[in-house]
Amino acid sequence: MKIYDTEGFPNPARIRIALAEKGATDEVSFVPVDVMGGEHREDAFKSMNPDATVPCLELADGTHISQCNAITEFIDGHFEGPSLTGTSPKQRAQIAMMNLRAENGLLNAVGAYFHHATEGLGPKLEIDQCAEWGNKQKDVAAQTMAYLDTVLANQEYLAGDAFSVADITAFAGLAFADFAKVEVPEQLSNLTAWRAKVAARPSISG
Amino acid sequence: MKIYDTEGFPNPARIRIALAEKGATDEVSFVPVDVMGGEHREDAFKSMNPDATVPCLELADGTHISQCNAITEFIDGHFEGPSLTGTSPKQRAQIAMMNLRAENGLLNAVGAYFHHATEGLGPKLEIDQCAEWGNKQKDVAAQTMAYLDTVLANQEYLAGDAFSVADITAFAGLAFADFAKVEVPEQLSNLTAWRAKVAARPSISG
Ligand SMILES: N[C@@H](CCC(=O)N[C@@H](CS)C(=O)NCC(=O)O)C(=O)O
Ligand SMILES: N[C@@H](CCC(=O)N[C@@H](CS)C(=O)NCC(=O)O)C(=O)O
Repeated sequence: MKIYDTEGFPNPARIRIALAEKGATDEVSFVPVDVMGGEHREDAFKSMNPDATVPCLELADGTHISQCNAITEFIDGHFEGPSLTGTSPKQRAQIAMMNLRAENGLLNAVGAYFHHATEGLGPKLEIDQCAEWGNKQKDVAAQTMAYLDTVLANQEYLAGDAFSVADITAFAGLAFADFAKVEVPEQLSNLTAWRAKVAARPSISG
Repeated sequence: MKIYDTEGFPNPARIRIALAEKGATDEVSFVPVDVMGGEHREDAFKSMNPDATVPCLELADGTHISQCNAITEFIDGHFEGPSLTGTSPKQRAQIAMMNLRAENGLLNAVGAYFHHATEGLGPKLEIDQCAEWGNKQKDVAAQTMAYLDTVLANQEYLAGDAFSVADITAFAGLAFADFAKVEVPEQLSNLTAWRAKVAARPSISG
């Protein structure tokens, strides 16, 4: 099993954390993709992943899976270890919902700001910017941080009492926010405390 | 079990089709939400669903689940009938990936065009438009239609041999495209043939 990715990038980080949570990092070989050099937009890469994004999973039979949420489905079902996506229908739905709120409202909103309203990955890659949209999405990210803080006032993790993929997505979203210089307000004390707790997990602290 | 939604709208349609595929439509009572009147943005609705969107599922214990992909997780796991989200980890990942491609690239892209670059739901609701972004997303929708056509050249359904939630999402995306006057090119003959086949399913043709 291979993962094509770029170390240090926010979406690849989601999958590396998920693998570490499952104790499965050593089951995968990582193939570096030169995103800064545009390798992910070349035909060779797009024939594996027409989304032209990292990460991309390659199974032993040659099947390619892109999109972190799809890759996480595979990892969570294939490897032993605590469930990241939930077991009962209700739990699965709650985790999926909170994961989507963290993804759309935080990680992807920060990403839209970074790629559209800042220099992003530089002029060679950011060839289709829309600054007005990017700046609106920065506001969405701020609202989502405030919302996540209220959720964490009443529970340990974003989807309830147990750590899940929703926490991974939000954690990667906050890391991306730091990188893109989107402020994570300190007065969001539930969010800040949760972040410190998640950062201390062996899957992240190493 | 209740579903708060607005009949005829594209995201609610996804869940109504999924319920019909599971033979579970009669297990749910539908509560109409006056989206055109802005009911979904009032505090009463947002206390159930802070996303301020329809559909929203309410379980017997009072739990609320928003986001079609999360609601579909619940429906698919809770009710009998053929699986919409897959059974093996590989199948689940492939379905999730194609569902996300159909959602991001088609349904949500058409939605962004409709809400940002046309009159959308009218001036009372469309208070934060970005026409430049909406028009870019119209191009994304066109590219995604062409991509889906190539996928359907080699297989019966979007995620392989079996009908899945990815087909539901893409079908709702094309219906939204018609409504938003985004052309579905007739020369995409695989897509057109697949659409006719899906439209004939009892869950859709009634
Ligand atoms: N929704 C995708 C997002 C993947 C994504 O955008 N990855 C970034 C790296 S963090 C990328 O490949 N960027 C390439 C580019 O911006 O051209 C997923 O869940 O995998
Ligand atoms: N990603 C959401 C999208 C839901 C959505 O946008 N629904 C539309 C109706 S089709 C809505 O509530 N629109 C309200 C608005 O635009 O203010 C989902 O999967 O449920």
